Order: sequence, then structure tokens, then C-alpha cells
Amino acid sequence: MISMTEVIGYVAATLTTVSFLPQAILTIKTRDTSSLSLSMYSIFTLGVFCWLIYGVYISDKAIIAANAITFILSGIILIYKIHNILTKKN
Amino acid sequence: MISMTEVIGYVAATLTTVSFLPQAILTIKTRDTSSLSLSMYSIFTLGVFCWLIYGVYISDKAIIAANAITFILSGIILIYKIHNILTKKN
Repeated sequence: MISMTEVIGYVAATLTTVSFLPQAILTIKTRDTSSLSLSMYSIFTLGVFCWLIYGVYISDKAIIAANAITFILSGIILIYKIHNILTKKN
Repeated sequence: MISMTEVIGYVAATLTTVSFLPQAILTIKTRDTSSLSLSMYSIFTLGVFCWLIYGVYISDKAIIAANAITFILSGIILIYKIHNILTKKN
């Protein structure tokens, strides 16, 4: 039987992973990144990449899957931000 | 001795936690939340709160500390976003 603690852990992991989807969709749609922090997305994307490596090291499929998804979403937002800075849009 | 895997885990946790600080500072300074997704910050803040409860359940101080910090930072950004929506600033 799955414990209450495990359920909370899975809910937490799902929410923090899924949350970046609406931000990525909003950024792709509007191309507006003016109020997004470049530092945040640089540090966060690097951090999620480290979580991915950590998941591979300890062979934890849940950590690998969650962070692979977040890495892609966060990476997309970061690329838009960098593109906008380079093209002087913000 | 601390293992390479543990080091990567700590680096990952530190980066993903710390990353929300520059975003919170930018949001407080500029008060601009136009390109921030309300859905993202609502879901993410709730998710981090679940991680916090999870940390309390399994008595893991690292999970509690990291998620308490992220909860505060993410919560501040969410409050600014909601305030701007309510005052029709975006």
C-alpha cells in the first residue's frame, strides 16, 4: 500500500514539474519575457540539469523524468529570454 | 566521506532554491509581473508547500529548509502577481 507521505511526495513533484508548462506556453505565445529574471532561469535550468544527473547517478526514474520535463520547459523560457536580450526586445 | 552523487544533489538543491531569489528581487524592484504566469506561480507555490509538508513527514531538514526558502520567495512573487491583476496593472 502506498503511504500518505508517498502521496504527498508525488503530488509535490507533479505540481512543481507541471507548473512550468503554463509559463512556457505564455512565453511562447506572447514572446514577452520583460519581467522574467535572466539570472533565475539561468541558475534554475542549470540546477534542474544537476538534478537530472543526480537522478541518473542514483538510477531514480521519477527524478529523471520530472527533471527532464522541467529542464526542457525551463530551457525553452531561458532561450526566449536570451533571444529577447540579444535582439534588444528587453 | 561525502560522495560525488551527494555533492551533485546538494549543488542541484542549492541552485534550484537560490534561483528564485533574483526573480523575487526583480519583481519587488520593478513591480512588473506582466510576463509572469499566474498559473505557474499558483501551482508552483502549492507544490513547494507540499514538498515542505513532505519534508516534515519524513523529518528531512534539507528538504524542509530548501522548500521553506523557495515557498517564501515564490509566495512573494505570487502575491505581487495577484496584486497587479486585482489592481488591473496586468
